[in-house]
Formats: sequence, C-alpha cells, structure tokens
Amino acid sequence: MTRAFQDYYPDHLSHCYGCGRLNPHGLRVQSFWAPDAPDETIARLTPRPEHTAIPGYVYGGLIASLIDCHGTGTAAAAAYRAEDRPMDSLPPLRFLTGTLHVEYLQPTPLGVELECRARIEEVKGRKVTVSARVAARGEECARGRVIAVQVPDEMLRGLLDG
Amino acid sequence: MTRAFQDYYPDHLSHCYGCGRLNPHGLRVQSFWAPDAPDETIARLTPRPEHTAIPGYVYGGLIASLIDCHGTGTAAAAAYRAEDRPMDSLPPLRFLTGTLHVEYLQPTPLGVELECRARIEEVKGRKVTVSARVAARGEECARGRVIAVQVPDEMLRGLLDG
Repeated sequence: MTRAFQDYYPDHLSHCYGCGRLNPHGLRVQSFWAPDAPDETIARLTPRPEHTAIPGYVYGGLIASLIDCHGTGTAAAAAYRAEDRPMDSLPPLRFLTGTLHVEYLQPTPLGVELECRARIEEVKGRKVTVSARVAARGEECARGRVIAVQVPDEMLRGLLDG
Repeated sequence: MTRAFQDYYPDHLSHCYGCGRLNPHGLRVQSFWAPDAPDETIARLTPRPEHTAIPGYVYGGLIASLIDCHGTGTAAAAAYRAEDRPMDSLPPLRFLTGTLHVEYLQPTPLGVELECRARIEEVKGRKVTVSARVAARGEECARGRVIAVQVPDEMLRGLLDG
C-alpha cells in the first residue's frame, strides 16, 4: 500500500493536530501524489459530525485546516522531489505555513468525503507555493493557496534535543 | 456579566464547531467589543494540548479557526450595530466566511492564552470585512483578514423549518 507523505515524517514531527499520525485527537490528513497529474496531490477527509458550521454544512475552519496540512505535506513532497531523494531520507524536510488563503465558493455539505487536490505552483529556496481545491461529491466548494516555509534547522534541532 | 456575541445567536445557529455554544466538541470562541477602541473586538482562547503543530507550538489551523469565527462574530456585531439594534432582536443576522487570509508571522507558543483582536474595516451591503491580529504573551504571532457574507435568508429559513 502506498504510504502517505505524512507517514514519512519522523516521530517527533508527527504530532500535528491536522496531519500527525501520532496525534490521537487530530484530523490525520493524509496526502498522496495524484495518479493522473505529475504536480498534483490528493488528500481525502470525511469531516466528523461535530465539524459543522450551520447544520448540514462543514465548518470553514476544518476546510482551512485540510488545505493547510495538505499544503504543507505537498510542500514537503515537492522539496524532496526537487532534491531527488526519497521522503524517508535524512535530513528531514518539514514545512510550516507562511500564509494561508481560503476562498469559500459555496457551503460544503457535511457527511460526505471531501477531496482536496493541490498543485505545486513553485519551489523556490526554502519556500513552496501550493494551490488547492476542495470538492464534495465532485463539486468544487473551496479554493486555497498555501505558501509553506521550510522549518528552520535550529528549530528542528531544538525539537530533537528537547 | 457581558454576553459574548455568540451568546446572542439563536439555538439553531449555535452548533458551529468554532464558536457554537451548543457544540460540546468545539472551540467555543467568544467575542466581545474591545473596551478601548470603538471598532475593535477581542476573543481569547487557550488552545488545548492536542492543538499542536510541532511540539511546543500551536497548530496553524487552530489560529485560522480563531480568526475565522472571531471574524464572522465581529461581522454579525458590526451588522447589528449598523442597523442600530441589539443582537438579540429579530431577524437574526448571521455570517459565513467568504474568504479567509492568514499570515503566520512567527511560531505561536502552545500553553498560553491567545488574544485575537479584530477591527471592522468595512460594512457594505451583506458583506463585512474584518482584519485580525493574534498575539501570545503580548507578542503578535499572526495576522488575518476575513470577508464575511451574510447568510442568505432562504438558507436561514431552511434551517428553521428543517
């Protein structure tokens, strides 16, 4: 079975509420390369019943979180690919969100799986720009953009020592 | 005691994961007028331990959610004020997020109360623009902007009937 980008993150970087496999309370967003487009990635998530905005519709913050974590995951995958090395090779490349922009096109129905599809727009130094679209039942509900910034080495070292 | 903006929302509009007082799993963001500036509002929130990005720092999606709900709450308060009527008067005015923009200035420490201060930038027809700043221990960690759109009357009616 294909491993998600997040499955390659080292343990001490796997506690993120949005996508950490070691956060038991979190959303556990999982990102994969799209099978049909070389610069695109896909994450699927079914919001929980409590992730409501008004009854029947998904909370906007959940959609922002999905775009955020799928965006930084995609940024990490893009950065490894740019260095032509596998995602479990050292040193780890991990990204934080610099800016997050979300445009809500229509209310997103609750109770169905959401598909977030991201596209790598630019890899430039320690910055990766990713655009994203979120769809429910094939219909686009939101669009987003993430500028992800590679976690500073000294911060990563602090985490390993701490 | 002063009631939060969200305390005035009618029951059927109080299930939001971010700010609904009737959502037992949610964040329960509460927004108030700032005592020191006529067009500003304040929400305070202490993220839970699981709301982590990397150990010791707050998850960006949580900050986006705080700005989102405090932004739409502020939009509602601004709209009532523009109509010169109290927030518990009918018909209810409720806002959804049209666009959400968040700029992360520095990693936000986990374990302390965050203060989100919003400013009403514009009230125009059914749209309210709100800017926001999030600080921890008095230091600014993130900035944001919400364009909030009044929930269409037919959607509100559907909720009441449903």
